[in-house]
Amino acid sequence: MNWGELVIALRQKVREVRPLIHHITNLVVTNLTANVTLAVGASPVMAYAREEVADMARLARAVVLNMGTLTADEVEAMLLAGRAASAAGIPVIFDPVGAGATPFRTATAQRIIRELHIDILRGNASEIAAVSGFGGQTRGVDAGEISVPAGQMARQVARDLGTVVVVTGATDYISDGERLIAVANGHALLTTVTGTGCSATSVIAAFRAVEADGVTAGAAALAYYGLAAEHAAATSRGPASFQVALLDALYKLEGEDLARGVKIREL
Amino acid sequence: MNWGELVIALRQKVREVRPLIHHITNLVVTNLTANVTLAVGASPVMAYAREEVADMARLARAVVLNMGTLTADEVEAMLLAGRAASAAGIPVIFDPVGAGATPFRTATAQRIIRELHIDILRGNASEIAAVSGFGGQTRGVDAGEISVPAGQMARQVARDLGTVVVVTGATDYISDGERLIAVANGHALLTTVTGTGCSATSVIAAFRAVEADGVTAGAAALAYYGLAAEHAAATSRGPASFQVALLDALYKLEGEDLARGVKIREL
Amino acid sequence: MNWGELVIALRQKVREVRPLIHHITNLVVTNLTANVTLAVGASPVMAYAREEVADMARLARAVVLNMGTLTADEVEAMLLAGRAASAAGIPVIFDPVGAGATPFRTATAQRIIRELHIDILRGNASEIAAVSGFGGQTRGVDAGEISVPAGQMARQVARDLGTVVVVTGATDYISDGERLIAVANGHALLTTVTGTGCSATSVIAAFRAVEADGVTAGAAALAYYGLAAEHAAATSRGPASFQVALLDALYKLEGEDLARGVKIREL
Repeated sequence: MNWGELVIALRQKVREVRPLIHHITNLVVTNLTANVTLAVGASPVMAYAREEVADMARLARAVVLNMGTLTADEVEAMLLAGRAASAAGIPVIFDPVGAGATPFRTATAQRIIRELHIDILRGNASEIAAVSGFGGQTRGVDAGEISVPAGQMARQVARDLGTVVVVTGATDYISDGERLIAVANGHALLTTVTGTGCSATSVIAAFRAVEADGVTAGAAALAYYGLAAEHAAATSRGPASFQVALLDALYKLEGEDLARGVKIREL
Repeated sequence: MNWGELVIALRQKVREVRPLIHHITNLVVTNLTANVTLAVGASPVMAYAREEVADMARLARAVVLNMGTLTADEVEAMLLAGRAASAAGIPVIFDPVGAGATPFRTATAQRIIRELHIDILRGNASEIAAVSGFGGQTRGVDAGEISVPAGQMARQVARDLGTVVVVTGATDYISDGERLIAVANGHALLTTVTGTGCSATSVIAAFRAVEADGVTAGAAALAYYGLAAEHAAATSRGPASFQVALLDALYKLEGEDLARGVKIREL
Repeated sequence: MNWGELVIALRQKVREVRPLIHHITNLVVTNLTANVTLAVGASPVMAYAREEVADMARLARAVVLNMGTLTADEVEAMLLAGRAASAAGIPVIFDPVGAGATPFRTATAQRIIRELHIDILRGNASEIAAVSGFGGQTRGVDAGEISVPAGQMARQVARDLGTVVVVTGATDYISDGERLIAVANGHALLTTVTGTGCSATSVIAAFRAVEADGVTAGAAALAYYGLAAEHAAATSRGPASFQVALLDALYKLEGEDLARGVKIREL
């Protein structure tokens, strides 16, 4: 497979289809992830009320559930939206932000995974370890330390949960339990801006909305996102100008720049 | 009427009076609309608790109600704030974000319009169509397709509801049921950033706070906002640098640049 | 004491320790204060659910409570987090946003101060006056007018409450009831961006997390923050480009630039 051409094709398809991505997400990244979703060419909608989340989820092409600032009410809304989406064949992408940091967070993440059909699970290594019982330790909502290589964990958790698992970090790993893909795009400045992991989840959802294979969608989305970060870093003077340049790059990146830059490897 | 001079005069008056604009708004645009309000020279306050919204509304010169991420609690707060404002003669500007997308949203928008005295109603064509029973269809919170020309709809809905109606789009229409004004300022990049419609509502509220005639305030505010977008687009490299430049332009735009640029036409 | 060297040393220590700062903050500034916390080298976590705030507070090195968009639920979460923090010897920094604007806000601020052990109280002059019974008047969440010189008020309120008090404004004052320090760094553009006061609170929390003396931490943090604002203003074209430059400067400012620029004076 020529990954460069595939990333270009999927990026183009997102712009043509303009899929609606329903987010139930956290208070820190609501604005940023809406703008990231727009920048890649999809259409974001953020809706949280129990009275409407099922209706909104059914209008969407993908549903993002992100528990960064979860409350009991929001968890109920996530379950309603997730069930409605699955019943309608709409993929659910779950971002278990901060799983492992507190018992409530870990238990909630595990409950969501148990009660919903998750199509793609995206987290950093410590979050994925926490939800899957791999041990490890989460420090706040940042990546902590885990003892199992991330790629091996991605494959094992994908197999155990029967879902596509994406473990992001300096290198990202995507697996469905059989295939395992590594994406080496990205830049250290991503760790200096809040919500860049949540934004990656939104980009994955946009690509998944137009590509039925979750592993392909996840790898292509992360290569695209990481390459945009590389371009952005070249012109920025710190974290905030980097964030501005990242969104601009997500909006503009295409063609040869994209084809040459993607670093995707099947392991 | 010389619209150029009028826009300059109102812009200046906002800066002199520095009216307090109480917002009950959505989670996506809270920060952006606060900054837009500051950039045009007004003073934003965001307050949601039922225990204080009536008190806060009475301190304000205009109240913005925006249901982008509505919940049942927030709707109650909007009704409390709206009633307190109207009782004190303070104008209420309502932004029915996403009306038409779900039954809950449409019903809530209609309830707010029925129970409160709305001074200005601002939405895109599909939202205004949804709240007024013009049919049409809303896709998420973005503009959908409607079959009636926007100007004609603005006038009809204004007449039916007895309020000023603003329908924003490539051309904006403002009507009180009799007069109908078109504003042709703006830029396509506005559709690539989340919350630019909500931001327009905040600018309208700031102008309405210092100008009793809602049609004049709405037209002047949208010309000012649209012209700032045109200036911003000239120096931006994508949606995020455009948003930064838009806020800078709202802060700085004045004098001849402003007088020459406004495109307001009475129909 | 050589303040220049002290500010450099504390700035460096924040980066080395990377303290976790738990925020329960308002909807307007959630994203901004998370990014400010990251930019100065600390690690932010925003968590609000009653089920986890005590656990999260105990993981942190400092807890920020900010009541800008308070609700009854959030107040309960603040009390739970604050009690857990104090029991574990973790400093609580309180920002009574908008105290004085409505009876609910003033009463809530006073309740938090009464029921919790506040390590540092940070507000503008009208907010500090409101919570301490100095009279004065708050206009929305902006600074109003008060009749007592800010430095004198800082010392008196610190003495009355037995806490460190920081009164920010054109000149900032920090006192523990005995010592009184004035910081003259800063720039007028800070008043054109929402959440710059809340951001100052986050920087103070990050410095306090690595420096046990609250007066020293507060003065060093505000000099650092104000100096970053001065640098940012030199290259910005309005409020939004200023905000971007401010975050970039908070990330980069160090060494001689820092040592020469701080304007701290013991009164």
